[in-house]
Amino acid sequence: MNLLNDLTGAIWQAHTRLGPHLRETPLDYSQAFSRMTGAQVWLKLENLQPTGSFKVRGALNKLLSLSPEALQKGVVAASSGNHGAGIAYGLQKLGAKGVVFVPEGASATKLEAIRRYGAEVRVFGKSGDDTELYARQYADAHGLTYISPYNDPEVIAGQGTIGLEIAHQMSQPPDAVFVTVGGGGMISGIASYLKSVSPHTTIVGCQPENDAAMWASIQAGRIVSIEARPTLSDGSAGGLEPDAITFALCQNLVDDWITVSEEEIASAMRFFIETQHQLLEGAAGVALAALLKAGIRGRRAIAVVCGANIGLETLRKILQ
Amino acid sequence: MNLLNDLTGAIWQAHTRLGPHLRETPLDYSQAFSRMTGAQVWLKLENLQPTGSFKVRGALNKLLSLSPEALQKGVVAASSGNHGAGIAYGLQKLGAKGVVFVPEGASATKLEAIRRYGAEVRVFGKSGDDTELYARQYADAHGLTYISPYNDPEVIAGQGTIGLEIAHQMSQPPDAVFVTVGGGGMISGIASYLKSVSPHTTIVGCQPENDAAMWASIQAGRIVSIEARPTLSDGSAGGLEPDAITFALCQNLVDDWITVSEEEIASAMRFFIETQHQLLEGAAGVALAALLKAGIRGRRAIAVVCGANIGLETLRKILQ
Repeated sequence: MNLLNDLTGAIWQAHTRLGPHLRETPLDYSQAFSRMTGAQVWLKLENLQPTGSFKVRGALNKLLSLSPEALQKGVVAASSGNHGAGIAYGLQKLGAKGVVFVPEGASATKLEAIRRYGAEVRVFGKSGDDTELYARQYADAHGLTYISPYNDPEVIAGQGTIGLEIAHQMSQPPDAVFVTVGGGGMISGIASYLKSVSPHTTIVGCQPENDAAMWASIQAGRIVSIEARPTLSDGSAGGLEPDAITFALCQNLVDDWITVSEEEIASAMRFFIETQHQLLEGAAGVALAALLKAGIRGRRAIAVVCGANIGLETLRKILQ
Repeated sequence: MNLLNDLTGAIWQAHTRLGPHLRETPLDYSQAFSRMTGAQVWLKLENLQPTGSFKVRGALNKLLSLSPEALQKGVVAASSGNHGAGIAYGLQKLGAKGVVFVPEGASATKLEAIRRYGAEVRVFGKSGDDTELYARQYADAHGLTYISPYNDPEVIAGQGTIGLEIAHQMSQPPDAVFVTVGGGGMISGIASYLKSVSPHTTIVGCQPENDAAMWASIQAGRIVSIEARPTLSDGSAGGLEPDAITFALCQNLVDDWITVSEEEIASAMRFFIETQHQLLEGAAGVALAALLKAGIRGRRAIAVVCGANIGLETLRKILQ
C-alpha cells in the first residue's frame, strides 16, 4: 500500500518539523486505569497540548509543509473547535495569516479560543458541512490553501507523530492502542506508524454509538452517511467526505472497533477526572470508555486522551 | 541570613537530586490571564506533577537526602492529602517503606491515592494537628524519620526547585510571583532562590481570608494561632508549629500579602478551568485569585498553580 509507505516517511518528517514548536506529550502509566482493568494501562496525554487537543499536530504540520508563497497568500479552514484552534495557533507561531470559518451558533468560548491566537474568524452556514463546503469554495476562488481537519496526508502525518512518540516512550510494544475516531485522521496516522514498527499491536477504533460514521462505513465496505444523534464527543462528530483517504487507511490498519454509549463515555470521564485530576473532553472519554469495556486483563494497553476542551456546561452535566 | 544562603545551595542540590525522578513542569504563557489583567502572565503548572501537587518535590527531596540506613528503617508522615501522596510516591520510586498517618474521616479518594503508591496508611486522631503530634511521637518511639510537610529545610529546598525552574524558563526576571501560603514551605523555597538571582522580583504571599495563619503571624510579629473557617483551599489550611522555620523566612523574603475570599477563589478556579482546560485545586485558586485582584497592568507576573487534586464534590460546587 503506497500511501502507507509514504505516510511513515511523512510522519518522521512531521516529527522533525514539529519539534521546535510542540512539546512531546507525556505517556503516563495510570495506576487507577490499570487496577480497574487488571491490565497495564498508559495514557497518552494529548489533553496537555497547548491548544488542549491533538489537532494542533496536523494543523501545524500542514502549515509547515506549505511553500513560503502559499503560506504568504494565506490558508482557510472550517471548524469551530479543535482544528480551528490548531490552525490559529499554528498561524500565530509562524506569523502567517488565515481565515477560520465557523457555523452560525458556534459557542462564544470556542470562537474566543480561536481569536485569542489572532486568526480571523468568519461566520457562515447553518451546519458544519455547509461551512466546510463554503470554506473550500472560498479558498479556491481566492487562490488560498484549504486545510481539511482529516482528509489530507500532511494532516494525517502530523497526527501520526503521536505513534512515533509512543514508540519512543514505551520500552516494549503495547498489545493494544485505543484511539477515538471521527474523520479518522488521528487513527490513520497512529496506525500507519505503529503497524510499521510493531505489526502485532492491535489498533482499536473507538466511536460513540450515537455518531459512528466510520464504523458504519467499514461495515458497509464503502463510505456511507448515517443519521447522527447528539453525543458528548462533539470533537469526533460529523460525516466523512465522499473521497476521504482515511477510509481505506482505516479498512487496512484498524483491527477492532468498539462503540460506546453516552453513559459509558460520561462514566469514563468522571473516572479520569477523579483519579487523574486532569480535564478531558468527550472525544477523549470515548477511547477511555472503550478501553474500560474491552476486556484487556493482563495486557499492555494505551488509550489516547485526545483533548481537554470541554465547556463548563458539559462538565457540569457529566458530574451530576 | 545563614538559613537563606544554605537554602540556595540546598535548592541547587535538590534540583540535581530530583532530575531523574520528576519532569520539569511547564511555565506557560496564558493569553486569557494576560488579557484579563492587562499584564503578561505565565502559569507554573504544578498541577501537572505526577501526584497532582508540588508537594512531591519536597517529599522526594527529603527522602533522597536520608542516609541509606535511615531510609531502610523507614519514614513517617502525617497527611491525608498532597504531602502524604508525595511521600508515598517517593517511597515507591525509591523502593523504600513508610507509614502515612491520616486523621479519622479523611476521604476515601485521598486514602486510595496514597495506598495506590504502596504506602501503609494508618488512621489516628480527630484533627490534622492530633495526627501530626501522634505521628511525631510514633517516629521517635520507633527510631523512624518523621517528615514534616513544611517545617524542614530539605522539604523547603525541594519546593524551592520551582524557583530554580522559573529562573531557567523565563528569558527575563518576572516583576512579581504569586504563591499560595499554608505552612509556608513553598513560598520560602521559591523566594529563597528567586531573591538570590533577582532581588527586584516581588514575592506575593497569597492566603484565603478564611484560613490565614501565616499572614496573621506576620502582622503580629510572632507565630500566632487563629480561628480558621472552612475554605476551598484545603491544601493550604492549618496552623503553624511554634518552631516553624518558615515564619522567619516569610518575614524576610515575602514582599506583599494578599488575602482572598471564597467567592474570589471559586471565580478564579472557574476562569482557569474554562480558559486553560486543566483542573486545579482550591489552593491553586488562591494564587490565581490574588493575581486577578492585585492590579498588575503592564507587569510580568507568574502565578504558581500548585495542585490539581480537587474532589468531584468540590468541583461540582464551584461550577454551580
